[in-house]
Amino acid sequence: MLYMYCSERVYEENVHTTHHIQYITFFDKSSYCDYQQCASLKLKCYISSHGISRVGRLGKYTLQNIKSKEIINMTNTETAQNGGASALPGMEEQLENMRVSGDGAPSEEDEDIVNPWTVCGKSDAGIDYDKLIKRFGCEKITPELVERLERITGKPAHPLLKRGIFFSHRDLKFILDRKEAGKPFYLYTGRGPSSHAMHLGHLVPFMFTKWLQEAFDVPLVIQLTDDEKFLWKNLTVEEAQKCAVENAKDIIACGFDKEKTFIFADFSYIGQCPAFYQNIALISRSITFNQAKGCFGFGDSDCIGKIHFPSIEAAPCFATSFPHIFKKRKDIPCLIPCAIDQDPYFRMTRDVSPKLGFHKPALMHSSFFPALQGAKTKMSASDENSAIFLTDTANQIKKKINKYAFSGGQTTVEEHRALGGNCDVDISYQYLRFFYEDDEKLAQIKEDYTSGKLLTGELKAILIAELQKLVAEIQLRRATVTDGVVEEFMTPRALKYNF
Amino acid sequence: MLYMYCSERVYEENVHTTHHIQYITFFDKSSYCDYQQCASLKLKCYISSHGISRVGRLGKYTLQNIKSKEIINMTNTETAQNGGASALPGMEEQLENMRVSGDGAPSEEDEDIVNPWTVCGKSDAGIDYDKLIKRFGCEKITPELVERLERITGKPAHPLLKRGIFFSHRDLKFILDRKEAGKPFYLYTGRGPSSHAMHLGHLVPFMFTKWLQEAFDVPLVIQLTDDEKFLWKNLTVEEAQKCAVENAKDIIACGFDKEKTFIFADFSYIGQCPAFYQNIALISRSITFNQAKGCFGFGDSDCIGKIHFPSIEAAPCFATSFPHIFKKRKDIPCLIPCAIDQDPYFRMTRDVSPKLGFHKPALMHSSFFPALQGAKTKMSASDENSAIFLTDTANQIKKKINKYAFSGGQTTVEEHRALGGNCDVDISYQYLRFFYEDDEKLAQIKEDYTSGKLLTGELKAILIAELQKLVAEIQLRRATVTDGVVEEFMTPRALKYNF
Repeated sequence: MLYMYCSERVYEENVHTTHHIQYITFFDKSSYCDYQQCASLKLKCYISSHGISRVGRLGKYTLQNIKSKEIINMTNTETAQNGGASALPGMEEQLENMRVSGDGAPSEEDEDIVNPWTVCGKSDAGIDYDKLIKRFGCEKITPELVERLERITGKPAHPLLKRGIFFSHRDLKFILDRKEAGKPFYLYTGRGPSSHAMHLGHLVPFMFTKWLQEAFDVPLVIQLTDDEKFLWKNLTVEEAQKCAVENAKDIIACGFDKEKTFIFADFSYIGQCPAFYQNIALISRSITFNQAKGCFGFGDSDCIGKIHFPSIEAAPCFATSFPHIFKKRKDIPCLIPCAIDQDPYFRMTRDVSPKLGFHKPALMHSSFFPALQGAKTKMSASDENSAIFLTDTANQIKKKINKYAFSGGQTTVEEHRALGGNCDVDISYQYLRFFYEDDEKLAQIKEDYTSGKLLTGELKAILIAELQKLVAEIQLRRATVTDGVVEEFMTPRALKYNF
Repeated sequence: MLYMYCSERVYEENVHTTHHIQYITFFDKSSYCDYQQCASLKLKCYISSHGISRVGRLGKYTLQNIKSKEIINMTNTETAQNGGASALPGMEEQLENMRVSGDGAPSEEDEDIVNPWTVCGKSDAGIDYDKLIKRFGCEKITPELVERLERITGKPAHPLLKRGIFFSHRDLKFILDRKEAGKPFYLYTGRGPSSHAMHLGHLVPFMFTKWLQEAFDVPLVIQLTDDEKFLWKNLTVEEAQKCAVENAKDIIACGFDKEKTFIFADFSYIGQCPAFYQNIALISRSITFNQAKGCFGFGDSDCIGKIHFPSIEAAPCFATSFPHIFKKRKDIPCLIPCAIDQDPYFRMTRDVSPKLGFHKPALMHSSFFPALQGAKTKMSASDENSAIFLTDTANQIKKKINKYAFSGGQTTVEEHRALGGNCDVDISYQYLRFFYEDDEKLAQIKEDYTSGKLLTGELKAILIAELQKLVAEIQLRRATVTDGVVEEFMTPRALKYNF
């Protein structure tokens, strides 16, 4: 666990356990684990015994920090008796030096938080993706790699790729090698259907996946983790299933090819395909609670459903989870286009793949689609005003952008003309990067906004027109997606490929 | 968790975590949980910081114990400074008074160990079942209850019931009330198919279940947990599935009625019935890792599949897991005949049932069928010489009993004639209690053996003849159980009852 979190509810129910376990995780994941045991336990006592329920950053709570926060310490007396500064000699220096390494752990206080549940950047320009690549141990998608992909597919790169929004990968070269050699692979992506309405941020991986499907002409499987949302949110099974169907309609409205695409929701598909559950069991046998805790920060107060869930998101990485598509072939790898916050699931899957006799899944990571309020976090379906939804009317889109879209412009027209706007933090420009197809015009917009020639209102007007058009198109297509169409996409069946 | 256990492997890998978590459980489960937080944390530090990797019994490690074991205590200084005896006033008395209640926790060092993975008695006469009833918090099956059951069903009690082999229950009265009121219930039992051959011990719950099915005329579901065995043993999915089919044949050979019985193996059925997985998810959302640890003793090095498994054994307790039998009815409870070592699964299920809107499962517990070598443990399929298998030939049965069956007789004929044998520890007599139908003759055998009139060899001969007959009958019936018959039993379908 990279980031200490303790919900109030857990805290109230089970105060001993929760705190304690968090700190155990903390010590396990840090380079601090070499530090002598009794000292770490001492620190744990300090923290745990004072009901600290929310701790911001790893490496932050040294003994000194705690004291400086004026938390009355039950062991202050002993501390003093032991020589003033510290209960154990050398403890404080060691704690101060405590630094975290590996697996997405922030190594400095001001680093970004990125995991499947929390995305939070420190700067107005958002997450520092170059640092993230280093931390996660993935590779940058270079211009050379984009060129190679264009050469192999014979198609110009999608704007999301050219503009570096899909910025990082794992084993993409291996997938391109296979394509060149005429060997099969498939695409896997997914969505946690937490609400009926998807927003623009949800659209990004699907738009890109659609392009990949066309460029490579390969099967695509899309997992809707209704069980995940059931486990994490306070939903009934039926509500979660309903969200999955509604989201499937939005996804289908992106224009996927029925002959090449299988969409499935866990609550149904697990009950339809024994091979899928068998792969889930295979994976769940290979991952210890310790490992799951390391990847996802689970605690002892988490339900066993959550703890088990990563094996369900991992299973579609293996072709044998889809016998109706791939028969019994184990040798077909997948490529996963996804937002980088989903990477922990697939890091874990990549760790266990070889010993289970499967290829590691390859990945292409996108940066986050920022919230209207700014690039520090991603759009959230639970905050209505942070996002443009696919159900929004033209008027709602206009209002939201005019009212909420964070501006990189100056406060007065005069200042703006003189100083220009900052495209790096301007949400309207950032959104255009995702959705505006014409490269030349986009470059012109950037130039004009940066120089001050283009005003914020004008920039917003361009975005509004663009998004109104995009959303209207999707709404039009979605209107044709009946329950019957959804059922066709979601029926386990052979696709147009022969394996 | 009732009994502290820490494997060496866990200890080496993750010393901080393991210890600590164990002690948290310890405090949670004991009456000690009212004790003030800082004191408990303090004690946790005492214990954890000294690398105690194996702790025998709950309630044993008081502060005093730890000191008397001469574990150098890092906080000895503070302790002294705080007034000598204890770091906190009154702490030691409270710790000394700390006693464990409920849920199978041994309160003394010499108690038996009974859980789904370990059964180990202290005395030659085996497990002390009266103590177990108290510890587990279940109820004894009294002669009055047996009489009531006979009255309601209009059938004489099965020998396994009359002789107290099914000795304990939970909510059996509730089930009998329902029967009297003409309200439905169903039977649920199961087996973990760890090997191709079932032994006599495995037969016991099925023989009794068959009688219950006939006496009550109700639906029966039998779960074969091939996934459990896959997770716990080093089997492939296919091997586990093969075991399940072979075991299903043995079970069917007990004489179950196809119109009233549905047998299912998890690896198949989870992939056939979405409602089953949905119930699994419902249960898995209701149980925290802490609770699972408390019931089953899981540790951080256990795989997430194991940790999740209890929800799979719990799900058949809910009628909605079998929509083909019960449609969507939530209001039909089940009665589970099983060996008492399976009780933790259903204690856990009973805890969560009300909040999920289901009846609690009722239970009837059997004592263990002892190993040939003596009543201290149960028969084990993995120790060939501890058990009579349903595949054994007449000659193998004879040889095993003559060679291995622990005798309660004397060492010479003369001594035996003079002193008599001890039926309480004599395995041959104990086996006859399970399988010999004629009450009068059995009483005669006991009298004669106790008096010395009947010699060990003669007693063994009676048992040999009895078991040869029983096993031969099953083998004969089993020969008629084709793969087709198994498939019929294992096909999800309506039974002869209308719900």
